[in-house]
Amino acid sequence: MTVYAPPLKDLRFVLQHMIGLDGLAALSGYEHVEADFVDAILDEAGKFLTDVWFPLNRSGDIEGSHLRDGVVVTPEGFKDAYHRMVQGGWLGIPFPEQYGGGNMPATIVTAIGEMINATNTSLAMAPGLTQGAVDALLEHGSEEMKETYVRRLIAGEWTGTMCLTEPQAGSDVGALTTKATPADDGTWRVKGTKIFISWGDHDLTDNIIHLVLARTPDSPPGTKGISMFVVPKYLVNEDGSLGALNDIQTVSLEHKMGIKASPTAVLSFGDQGDGSIGYLIGEERQGMRYMFTMMNNARVAVGLAGVSIGEMAYQNALAYAQERIQGRPIGASPDEVTPIIGHANVRRMLMTMRAQVEAMRALLLENAYAMDMARSHPDEETRRQYSLYADLLTPVSKAWATDLGSEVASMAIQVYGGMGYIEESGMPQFYRDSRILSIYEGTNGIQALDLIGRKLPAGGGAAIMGFIANMKAIDADLAKAGERFSSMRTLLADGVTALEQATGWLAMNGMQDPNQAAAGATPYLNMLGTVAGGYFLAKSALTASRLLEEGNADKEFLEAKIATARFYAEQLLPLGTALLGPITAGKDNLFAIDPDQMRH
Amino acid sequence: MTVYAPPLKDLRFVLQHMIGLDGLAALSGYEHVEADFVDAILDEAGKFLTDVWFPLNRSGDIEGSHLRDGVVVTPEGFKDAYHRMVQGGWLGIPFPEQYGGGNMPATIVTAIGEMINATNTSLAMAPGLTQGAVDALLEHGSEEMKETYVRRLIAGEWTGTMCLTEPQAGSDVGALTTKATPADDGTWRVKGTKIFISWGDHDLTDNIIHLVLARTPDSPPGTKGISMFVVPKYLVNEDGSLGALNDIQTVSLEHKMGIKASPTAVLSFGDQGDGSIGYLIGEERQGMRYMFTMMNNARVAVGLAGVSIGEMAYQNALAYAQERIQGRPIGASPDEVTPIIGHANVRRMLMTMRAQVEAMRALLLENAYAMDMARSHPDEETRRQYSLYADLLTPVSKAWATDLGSEVASMAIQVYGGMGYIEESGMPQFYRDSRILSIYEGTNGIQALDLIGRKLPAGGGAAIMGFIANMKAIDADLAKAGERFSSMRTLLADGVTALEQATGWLAMNGMQDPNQAAAGATPYLNMLGTVAGGYFLAKSALTASRLLEEGNADKEFLEAKIATARFYAEQLLPLGTALLGPITAGKDNLFAIDPDQMRH
Repeated sequence: MTVYAPPLKDLRFVLQHMIGLDGLAALSGYEHVEADFVDAILDEAGKFLTDVWFPLNRSGDIEGSHLRDGVVVTPEGFKDAYHRMVQGGWLGIPFPEQYGGGNMPATIVTAIGEMINATNTSLAMAPGLTQGAVDALLEHGSEEMKETYVRRLIAGEWTGTMCLTEPQAGSDVGALTTKATPADDGTWRVKGTKIFISWGDHDLTDNIIHLVLARTPDSPPGTKGISMFVVPKYLVNEDGSLGALNDIQTVSLEHKMGIKASPTAVLSFGDQGDGSIGYLIGEERQGMRYMFTMMNNARVAVGLAGVSIGEMAYQNALAYAQERIQGRPIGASPDEVTPIIGHANVRRMLMTMRAQVEAMRALLLENAYAMDMARSHPDEETRRQYSLYADLLTPVSKAWATDLGSEVASMAIQVYGGMGYIEESGMPQFYRDSRILSIYEGTNGIQALDLIGRKLPAGGGAAIMGFIANMKAIDADLAKAGERFSSMRTLLADGVTALEQATGWLAMNGMQDPNQAAAGATPYLNMLGTVAGGYFLAKSALTASRLLEEGNADKEFLEAKIATARFYAEQLLPLGTALLGPITAGKDNLFAIDPDQMRH
Repeated sequence: MTVYAPPLKDLRFVLQHMIGLDGLAALSGYEHVEADFVDAILDEAGKFLTDVWFPLNRSGDIEGSHLRDGVVVTPEGFKDAYHRMVQGGWLGIPFPEQYGGGNMPATIVTAIGEMINATNTSLAMAPGLTQGAVDALLEHGSEEMKETYVRRLIAGEWTGTMCLTEPQAGSDVGALTTKATPADDGTWRVKGTKIFISWGDHDLTDNIIHLVLARTPDSPPGTKGISMFVVPKYLVNEDGSLGALNDIQTVSLEHKMGIKASPTAVLSFGDQGDGSIGYLIGEERQGMRYMFTMMNNARVAVGLAGVSIGEMAYQNALAYAQERIQGRPIGASPDEVTPIIGHANVRRMLMTMRAQVEAMRALLLENAYAMDMARSHPDEETRRQYSLYADLLTPVSKAWATDLGSEVASMAIQVYGGMGYIEESGMPQFYRDSRILSIYEGTNGIQALDLIGRKLPAGGGAAIMGFIANMKAIDADLAKAGERFSSMRTLLADGVTALEQATGWLAMNGMQDPNQAAAGATPYLNMLGTVAGGYFLAKSALTASRLLEEGNADKEFLEAKIATARFYAEQLLPLGTALLGPITAGKDNLFAIDPDQMRH
């Protein structure tokens, strides 16, 4: 039996006191985003998700989705839970009012999204993928596509998918071979097999709108030859009613270690005839660019799921550690007993989980805020700067938060001890579910390469240099904040210095030999995440300290924020700082052994 | 489809060149342990296990063990594979000839054990538990018990279990309530429920010999009141034939995340009558001490399983990375392709897995060698020193190698990408199976407390001080070994210095307040493991360098050993060194937040 209470207090703290809602409310169209409104909506979302989605998390894992006679059957209750979410208006909140959306900034959507992903990671993927499809169609689709598809995707009547991967084309999207040939009527015929299609088929809605990457005739090889198509499961008649099936077969579902309720399909397009009917999005050969529109949001969403499972794992481990009586405190008399939270090593695990979740949460909300500013700030230069900043944070949100999400899920198992290995405890599901997050939407290795290859050099390094400058800028405040901030100050400064050195090393050596930078990419991403986490928590501690001085009544909560930041600085941050050596050791060690000599 | 090739080359390198078989062959009774013999036995064991045990690893995971009508049914093929192992004489190798054993030193048993655990982690537990029971009975049982039970356990006719845990008594063994009351005939009546009993019931053999911890009348509370009993599933008649069932019910089997072929039973003793008939081992109230006889070997065996799954995961990731074509090398032309092992971040993962497996393997074999010397060296003082050394290494072998085993299994998933999340790839099983290792036979948190609370202070700190002195002593050799040993030398020296400081801090502060030491216990164990790993690999590199100078023909293998040691020093060791701050930060941070204030 697992428990979940929406982490409203910490979400509000970050939104109201660290990020500040004023900046969002000042944006055109977001005037309604003020504290009371946000409080109410978080409260309502948390309640709905806890009541309706959460109870299906484990039953969905046990039952799983199955392919029966060519049709996917999702677990008991999923269809109802999905439609209750639609009816509550939650699915449409990220989208413009013009197409029936709720017009909420990404920052608020992210706060709600954390709870969506926590309460049912598998089911959360269905609206998550729909969002990707809507983003791509809104940005690059025709007005007709928006009217035909986007409205009904936003309304939750249909869901969307992203059909990228093929057996020979995983991380290397450019190797895909699915073909699209033009028909006389301006539509296209799509033929090919796509794998790993999340929610590629299901019984939640009447139709599914696939966004498919394919290659048009005479296109160049690689990513430059890829175009993107809308390929609906059922064709849509002019009056909006559903027409014929569009020759898309669900060949099989994968047997996955986790997220078992989410059907992962092998889809065959156009196998029975001339091809599935597809509609070109935007221009030919721009598919890869459009894909990144979908992908960038999706990457942040996947990182967010790391926070979600981390919070879930933390809450359950905390509850168990408070109730499980075992052993006695060191130095106590033999007949004294204690809940295991009284033991130092259990407390260490809980504090680690707590600090990491808070650091990840702050990062993800910061990332979303930067996206909002990049999209909606009135000043172009400000938009440009926030865009670079959001781009910089995105691979870190995706990779760092997902690796940590798995680590935190693993620690929950450890806190539970033997019970944590038993499926009924719920802890194995978090461990199994979270493990996909480091893989899909671009493996974490790909994220690290994206970070060092694209995001660091973008805009002449403006984003990373600006971020480092911001990290340094709080030093003065930390110096003034008193004795219990002193270790935080020193250790953060060490981390920022190491980050600056590592960044410089990668820039200098990567210029001469990109493999030198690639060799250090993964530890660099981990260092950036860990140091950024230390920075966000130090900021949260300064904020808490200020609120305490102002007489804020929630003393215990604010004191806990400071203690958590200090724990992070003393216990976790040094491991990020220590990555300077590994980052700057260069590629030679990695490639010193010939692959054929690597067997033991 | 997974692959496995016994890592004979690396095992032989460690046994012959790092540990040296001369020391073993010089021990009384082990004269037969010479290079050719060891080569042959490793070869033969590897072949048998790969042919017979390995093919059942995944089918056993899929099928699992099940309770049907009160009887446990193990997966197809397990009974046959078990008996073929028995017939091959493999099961008896650790035990004295006097009782039908093969009389092999722990060092060789450990080398073979690595392959046993790798090829079938679930099935390996059955003889593993038998070994624990035999060890306890040989050390503490009566001559009659040895004749009645030990002979047939060693012969593989029956298996053994360890029945410790109860619902309220997990890590806190002293909280157990199972009762044993004396009968008129000198036997005992045992009543109580035990949980988490691995191989607690099964269909491999006709009888199962349970070693049960229970409380006798008027015993003091806690661990001091515990006694140990032999409680066979079937009673044994005087002529050795099987008698009546002994009223032990298999109440249920646990639904575990992994090691699904290994039946984990809830056993009810004596529920239907006066109690199951039990026979007291040794003296009353000495059960806890006897348990540690079983436990200490078992802890090393569990650590060994971390090496095993790590090696398995490494081999498969390596094979996949060599065969999976995806993307192009950085800087290559667009139509050039590469197996993913050509990418720096994949190579980084493989080198990390490789270096960690080699470090773990060296540690485990060293630990076993120390156990052999502690048991069989002719000189008492030498035995005492090795005993302290083996005791020091044991919690590190158990905890460090199991945490790393899980990490390495996780990296294999990552190398496989999306395929690694699909059960058919076999990688999820390694990830799921390995996760128990950090929990059972004393959680890794318990190991860390054992390390700092018992093993560091034992013998006035002789073992840790001696170990640190040994680590320092190779500095001169590293200095002489030339340029490519220079980073290894510096980084190992940094690590050893940090280890020495951390040890001193724990000793000083732990004396005043044991909770100060307990707070740093887990990072200290990790530091000791990581630095020891760096030391063992540096030694292996020096050994390889010497062999190269002597003209050893296996140049590529030896060069790879040096490269691996250097990778470890530059990429992994600094993260151990960096734990000095966290270890010495003290307990205040851990206990700064009141448990009730920890919710988000």
